[in-house]
Amino acid sequence: MKILLVFAHPEHRSFCGALKDTAVRTLADLGHDVTVSDLYAMKWNAELDSQDFTGDRVDDDYLDLSREQEHAFATHTQAFDVEQEQRKVAEADLLLFHFPVWWFSMPAILKGWVDRVFARGFAYSAGRKYGTGHFAGKKAMVCLTTGTGSTLYEPNGIDGDLLHVLWPIHNGTLAYTGFTVLPPFAAWMPGKVSADERQSYLDAYARRLTTFEDTEPLFFHPWEDYDKTQRLKPGVKARSSVQWNPSAGQTFEQAAHEYDQRSATER
Amino acid sequence: MKILLVFAHPEHRSFCGALKDTAVRTLADLGHDVTVSDLYAMKWNAELDSQDFTGDRVDDDYLDLSREQEHAFATHTQAFDVEQEQRKVAEADLLLFHFPVWWFSMPAILKGWVDRVFARGFAYSAGRKYGTGHFAGKKAMVCLTTGTGSTLYEPNGIDGDLLHVLWPIHNGTLAYTGFTVLPPFAAWMPGKVSADERQSYLDAYARRLTTFEDTEPLFFHPWEDYDKTQRLKPGVKARSSVQWNPSAGQTFEQAAHEYDQRSATER
Repeated sequence: MKILLVFAHPEHRSFCGALKDTAVRTLADLGHDVTVSDLYAMKWNAELDSQDFTGDRVDDDYLDLSREQEHAFATHTQAFDVEQEQRKVAEADLLLFHFPVWWFSMPAILKGWVDRVFARGFAYSAGRKYGTGHFAGKKAMVCLTTGTGSTLYEPNGIDGDLLHVLWPIHNGTLAYTGFTVLPPFAAWMPGKVSADERQSYLDAYARRLTTFEDTEPLFFHPWEDYDKTQRLKPGVKARSSVQWNPSAGQTFEQAAHEYDQRSATER
Repeated sequence: MKILLVFAHPEHRSFCGALKDTAVRTLADLGHDVTVSDLYAMKWNAELDSQDFTGDRVDDDYLDLSREQEHAFATHTQAFDVEQEQRKVAEADLLLFHFPVWWFSMPAILKGWVDRVFARGFAYSAGRKYGTGHFAGKKAMVCLTTGTGSTLYEPNGIDGDLLHVLWPIHNGTLAYTGFTVLPPFAAWMPGKVSADERQSYLDAYARRLTTFEDTEPLFFHPWEDYDKTQRLKPGVKARSSVQWNPSAGQTFEQAAHEYDQRSATER
């Protein structure tokens, strides 16, 4: 299998870097073909702007990013660094994001990789989402480190439930473009735990990667569940833990009840 | 009052730009002192890295960002562009973020403004959060544009409830550092509606800004509600719509019930 690991930490000897090295070694030992995009080492430019369009523009005067992205993709006139990353994504069977959580989210350099590489035309287009998305058939997974303990990411923690915090990445970026999203791997405040605990994170991550092909993915509603206003159809009960569906007669309370029931059995 | 408007759209004639111009005009007419940080025009560098530390580092060999941020802030050796933005934040009574939603989140250039400007030492430090945060007494508000309709941001929409999508920004960035967070202003797919509808967005936004000093803020749990593991204390029922508190005997279902009840009366 081909695997693309996008690494977004400025210190390669950080624990985030150790997790990256563990992934590369573990996956290579299993016979996979691993490519790493080390964004800081590449001096990745995070700002999506007109510089991404190197040929004739649809409109030289007014910058409509979606339109220019679609045009540049179709005419092979995207910036070289964007095209290179798109080639890696197109070839990958599994996409891994490795990053430290900053402000309940990913570092800007990785967000800018998404903004620029997941260009309209390449990563999405009208009516192609989730199961019919451009990346259907590929898997994706987030591996993150935190500066604080796991308690902050519990339902009553300051950050809230980890899967709620990652919703914009899991649902909004990965599932949206067609990826099957595997549960995230989190190493909690590796900078403040013992060397033994750090080693057990690395071991646990190696085990996760060894079995990734059989891992049960996270649930996100498939495209067929949405109507043309991109809301869940009246008959569909929300099961994502974030949404609820009034048009199915479902309150947030009822959606939460089902989530509590699932959590009790699955977690 | 002093107001800092951070604008993150590469096309200044976009509708996002029109909202910015409306804000500047409306607030100036009311006698406020408005500063705009136009991130694309400033060619803002989004990547937080060692270049932000211009003096002697705590450790030249290993980059620990939190430690170096705190040290550089204390020794006045931060990068000049970071210091300039921090001065604007320090002086502001109201902070406005103006951006288009990209991938359920803010553009990388704005995320990079947060990553770099909200440095440890300046924006946060141990045990100072929410009401005791560095920016306590200041207000903040998000003004966003979307490429799609409002239905996507309803509870059963693809994006989920707007306040859930904005949780990392509202709670994780603004409330966390002490800001009182006002409800967001959203202009839904301004690129696809009539000129009249666009004008009514601008008018509505001007009205929002005219009354911002009396606007009821969003609710986030104050720092006193959290224990030392940064989880809600046993007696505290979650009211944020995202969290729930098992240690208060509260299931997600019960938290959602209260949210449904509030929504019925307040929304």
